[in-house]
Amino acid sequence: GGLGFRATNGEIDLELQVPAEAEGSGAALVPAALFGQLVRSLPSEYAELRLTPEGLELEGGRFATRIAVADPEAFPPFPEVPGPEGEVPAGALARALSRVRYAAAQEEYRAIFRGIQLELDAEKLRAVATDGFRLALFDAPGGSALAAKLVLPARSADELVRLIKDADVPLRLAVGEGRLRIEGERFRAALALMEGTFPDYQRVIPGRFVLQAVLDAEALRQAIERLRVLADRQSQRVDLAFAEGTLELAAEGEYGRGREALAAEVEGELPLAAAFNAHYLADALKGLKGAVRFKLSGAQTPSVLESEEEPGYLAVVVPLRV
Amino acid sequence: GGLGFRATNGEIDLELQVPAEAEGSGAALVPAALFGQLVRSLPSEYAELRLTPEGLELEGGRFATRIAVADPEAFPPFPEVPGPEGEVPAGALARALSRVRYAAAQEEYRAIFRGIQLELDAEKLRAVATDGFRLALFDAPGGSALAAKLVLPARSADELVRLIKDADVPLRLAVGEGRLRIEGERFRAALALMEGTFPDYQRVIPGRFVLQAVLDAEALRQAIERLRVLADRQSQRVDLAFAEGTLELAAEGEYGRGREALAAEVEGELPLAAAFNAHYLADALKGLKGAVRFKLSGAQTPSVLESEEEPGYLAVVVPLRV
Repeated sequence: GGLGFRATNGEIDLELQVPAEAEGSGAALVPAALFGQLVRSLPSEYAELRLTPEGLELEGGRFATRIAVADPEAFPPFPEVPGPEGEVPAGALARALSRVRYAAAQEEYRAIFRGIQLELDAEKLRAVATDGFRLALFDAPGGSALAAKLVLPARSADELVRLIKDADVPLRLAVGEGRLRIEGERFRAALALMEGTFPDYQRVIPGRFVLQAVLDAEALRQAIERLRVLADRQSQRVDLAFAEGTLELAAEGEYGRGREALAAEVEGELPLAAAFNAHYLADALKGLKGAVRFKLSGAQTPSVLESEEEPGYLAVVVPLRV
Repeated sequence: GGLGFRATNGEIDLELQVPAEAEGSGAALVPAALFGQLVRSLPSEYAELRLTPEGLELEGGRFATRIAVADPEAFPPFPEVPGPEGEVPAGALARALSRVRYAAAQEEYRAIFRGIQLELDAEKLRAVATDGFRLALFDAPGGSALAAKLVLPARSADELVRLIKDADVPLRLAVGEGRLRIEGERFRAALALMEGTFPDYQRVIPGRFVLQAVLDAEALRQAIERLRVLADRQSQRVDLAFAEGTLELAAEGEYGRGREALAAEVEGELPLAAAFNAHYLADALKGLKGAVRFKLSGAQTPSVLESEEEPGYLAVVVPLRV
């Protein structure tokens, strides 16, 4: 006995099992939001469901309700996803998707930029997102028998993360018919993949650097957030000047200007100054613990941010032209 | 030495003193939101301010900023509020305004319904709000030498509550020239009053009841919130049936129906049924601790809700015509 749920929003099909004591069997189609609200609001620990010819009865404590149901035959079948299978750890997949999510585009202008590319091979699992102005990449250990490159809509990735983030179990993956199928212990999901070619992002990751600075990631992020208040609203420009033992930040806008100096281990061609979009820099630093390694390929060419504590993470930010 | 702030939004003028070590004196006009953001974001416990011919310098830790200032002569003077004075406890005023706030109108249709009437006399302080469909009233002990009836815009009352809610000190009040002046230890505020006559609300508070029920306020509110999910979206109708020892609630809408029974001490003409707007009932119960006394004057005439733990509170809700 048990209770199964199935839902779809057209982009994600989801099937979930929850433990239940059940007698008999039956299926009904119910309005999802309403049903969820009712169950969450129950005054009792357990809920009792009864499927009758008049509707679905839901009871908990002294609260009882009966909701109208529709014929489950009208519901689309769970999509077939034939194709090769692999296995990845749920935690690694959730972390990789969450880490790069911020760099996916919000706007409409090119659909593929609103996706997250997932790359699976025998050694690792990689997630990449870019909106054409900045890029985030995360490599998680966890090779899989399934070698694939696929692009998930960022919003579907968000839902997937919600589903898997608390369960550190292996997930079975399969790709086919334009979909990614993911199966865990108590669920299976089929996510529609994005069509089109993900940008050739390797090109924009610089390999040679003229300067590297190591400093506390959170202190840098907070300084940027402070200066952002003063920065020009359009460009969000913040100026970074690297010198021996220090990184000096400055911003100036309509209302005034500000500056802040941070201690940093700096190596390379000194001094060096470059301007960045404060919003992009702050995004790339968000949630990083410990030190960040800031690697500049030049004052006008892409820079790389890496986490000293989370070696799989890499962000690319491009200096403003000034 | 000290640091004083003055601000106005046209409806509230506010002057605040904060402790500071000061040398020399001077005044400058700064953009309020920007200045607040900067101060809140400072990495240090103390802030250093320096007024120079080039602007206002603000420093904290290794962060330093200079913001452009304008001539303070351009700022409107603090309004004169001549007239009789009185004193009320800050806590009582804050509680009275907060307790009735929900019943003030959101919409535009008659300005005076968007206000809260404050009544001061030798014995008590009363706040009343009504949107024409329901009413809330709160009497706080704390007589004042100032006898007055005045109507504050609900939004100004919100700001006032933010200002006084944490300080349980006496406040000096004065009314005149269309304004209420309130002075505390470190601040003074002048609030523009609303013009027009507040509705004669005493008329709608029933004095005779056919039934009274006493039950747990929070349990009732939660049951109403649950049923609200199922209620007709337009009318928000929830049906209440009072019987010996029990209150049974029911709602029905497009998606189905629900019911819940609550234990209640019921006295009066039994059985009695009445329908209410679930949203109004839930609002009237929100935040009430302990038991509520539900007093019905009839199935189609106004009902009163009173708190057993907070005797100053009274709410009027009118049954739906069914």
